[in-house]
Amino acid sequence: MTDRALLPTGLEDVLPIDAQHEASVVDHLMHTFASMGYDRVKPPLIEFEDNLLQGSGAAISAQTFRVMDPVSQRMLGIRPDMTVQVERIATTRLINAPRPLRLSYAGQVLRVKGSQLRPERQFTQTGIELIGSDAHAADCEIILLAHEALSKAGVKNLSVDLGLPALVPAICEDLNMDQQTREDLRMALDRKDAASVKALGGVAANLFAQLLDSAGPASHAIAMLKKLDLGGKAKELRERLINVYDLVKSQAPALSITIDASENRGYEYHTGVAYTYYAKGARGELGRGGRYVAGSGEAATGFTVFVDSLMRALEKPDTPEKVFLPFATPSQEGARLRADGHIIVNGLQEVPDEQAEGLRMGCSHIFLNGNIVALSR
Amino acid sequence: MTDRALLPTGLEDVLPIDAQHEASVVDHLMHTFASMGYDRVKPPLIEFEDNLLQGSGAAISAQTFRVMDPVSQRMLGIRPDMTVQVERIATTRLINAPRPLRLSYAGQVLRVKGSQLRPERQFTQTGIELIGSDAHAADCEIILLAHEALSKAGVKNLSVDLGLPALVPAICEDLNMDQQTREDLRMALDRKDAASVKALGGVAANLFAQLLDSAGPASHAIAMLKKLDLGGKAKELRERLINVYDLVKSQAPALSITIDASENRGYEYHTGVAYTYYAKGARGELGRGGRYVAGSGEAATGFTVFVDSLMRALEKPDTPEKVFLPFATPSQEGARLRADGHIIVNGLQEVPDEQAEGLRMGCSHIFLNGNIVALSR
Repeated sequence: MTDRALLPTGLEDVLPIDAQHEASVVDHLMHTFASMGYDRVKPPLIEFEDNLLQGSGAAISAQTFRVMDPVSQRMLGIRPDMTVQVERIATTRLINAPRPLRLSYAGQVLRVKGSQLRPERQFTQTGIELIGSDAHAADCEIILLAHEALSKAGVKNLSVDLGLPALVPAICEDLNMDQQTREDLRMALDRKDAASVKALGGVAANLFAQLLDSAGPASHAIAMLKKLDLGGKAKELRERLINVYDLVKSQAPALSITIDASENRGYEYHTGVAYTYYAKGARGELGRGGRYVAGSGEAATGFTVFVDSLMRALEKPDTPEKVFLPFATPSQEGARLRADGHIIVNGLQEVPDEQAEGLRMGCSHIFLNGNIVALSR
Repeated sequence: MTDRALLPTGLEDVLPIDAQHEASVVDHLMHTFASMGYDRVKPPLIEFEDNLLQGSGAAISAQTFRVMDPVSQRMLGIRPDMTVQVERIATTRLINAPRPLRLSYAGQVLRVKGSQLRPERQFTQTGIELIGSDAHAADCEIILLAHEALSKAGVKNLSVDLGLPALVPAICEDLNMDQQTREDLRMALDRKDAASVKALGGVAANLFAQLLDSAGPASHAIAMLKKLDLGGKAKELRERLINVYDLVKSQAPALSITIDASENRGYEYHTGVAYTYYAKGARGELGRGGRYVAGSGEAATGFTVFVDSLMRALEKPDTPEKVFLPFATPSQEGARLRADGHIIVNGLQEVPDEQAEGLRMGCSHIFLNGNIVALSR
């Protein structure tokens, strides 16, 4: 037999008061999303694996647990991500719902292996999708709503990084660059390896070097990007980024924004502006999103929160106050205290010292002779 | 490729507004549990299968999806039930927490196959466990808290059925009945098959017949149970049932209670009073619980809600009202409306007829010239 306390690597029991804290943070996020008309959907934990692995799902195929379904005799996957599922709902079951369609979701996802940076294999994921609009206002809505949701959840010193992951591929396409050079160049750009970028960039070596240099605070980046000699698709992408940035800036002048138009990593299926949120001092991304094309061919954008990273960025909550009710306190007294918002803990048997018992039970207060009295050690 | 809209049998996409309704009901239940000092825990979706299948888990072993863990090279089970996990947490990670320990939980569980009555294979489960007290007041707390939580969630015409699943086995033990007869008798009792009960009951045929007749409204049942000629363990169990009933009745005189001390089905591991909740007109049990012995040897009791049954017992929620904000409405107006509790839907581009657009988007109202105006078709 396995030691009962032993859990597989990367899986954990979340204990009081952390489990409550996480639930309440997710609740706050969902409430903020709902206030902008994002309606909640709840896809199943498992479904046919080929449906799970479409579109952006293909990238995490190797991270998907699979089980045989004795009912259908087919392979099912345990979802490693919910965004593919929500996009599936939008483009099948809700294909006739009016556009733009706003959906929100929250749930658990599982991964086969953790990484060194994130050893966890189960995550809470929550987010929003906005399907059927190509407008800059749609990007702006998502960027500002994500910012508001994270701020209201308690994150301090938030900043958003805007990216344009399709830009480098578009420039490479214009240059008719061969596949191997493209890949090497993209990796060099992601590593911020200026020397390799220059070596690989060919006739556009200067352009790529300038692109790399443009990464940083938004005003600097926008000024530099405007100077780049771009054509065709790349030029359109730059216009989109600048327009979205201007709109966001006009609605939220105080927002801390950086721009890195050279980065690709993890955004392979994004077609327009991508957004990544960070908090000063917190490890890793708190969430990310961006524009993509849904399975239905519709323009779409969305944002997903990595709740584990978010929780690490938040202060630990205070232990809630609890009022101990000595054994045989009339039940209507307890009901009254709870109606007033108190958490009560019933004594279940007579004890010699009720105050000591309240303390032992971890209560901050005791109900004595009709009064709430603080307990002190 | 699989049709993207196709889900495996027994699994579903929960859509607006049902997904929000379910989340809000679970939230209400958890809030009620928290008000009595039940602290939330969150066990993982998967863990080593032999840990999942201990105690009451053994009964649903065949209902557990299993996956190979490439990290530990061992079999994991996807939880078919959360109560075993919570009991595991209580008796391992929280073994040194003060007793009685009050824990709550909410999450998704998966079953390999549905039944004809309940074709679903994924359920939302939520509940409470109270570990480390053998007091009648503990049973009473759970019974009344479950009742309150279900009532506050909106269930009408609730009733609770109290059972004593260990009673028949205790009587059989006293009679030194052989194993086959015991099993036949228990099945006959569960089927309310009076003729078979009489035939199988041997010297105690009359006793079992009376026990069967006792099932019904609490006052009738208690009166009949008091007349039974019981000894030893069986007598103790009856005393416990009567004491718990008296305590519940004194604290909640209006509660609708039935008692069936002859039933066993599904309560194999319960050692004392068991509780099952029904609502008039709603299919199936809304939840159940009862007294058991935890893996640590501690006296424990708990209650679990079958959220799918609960949702079927509730009225459908109203569609929430939404206010359409025509394109380019200043964002601070939206912020103000949301601060006042309104749900807003931003127009993302100019349209010729904003009222028609608001209607098309499913909004009940539109924000025009600083006012919220009802939209009518």
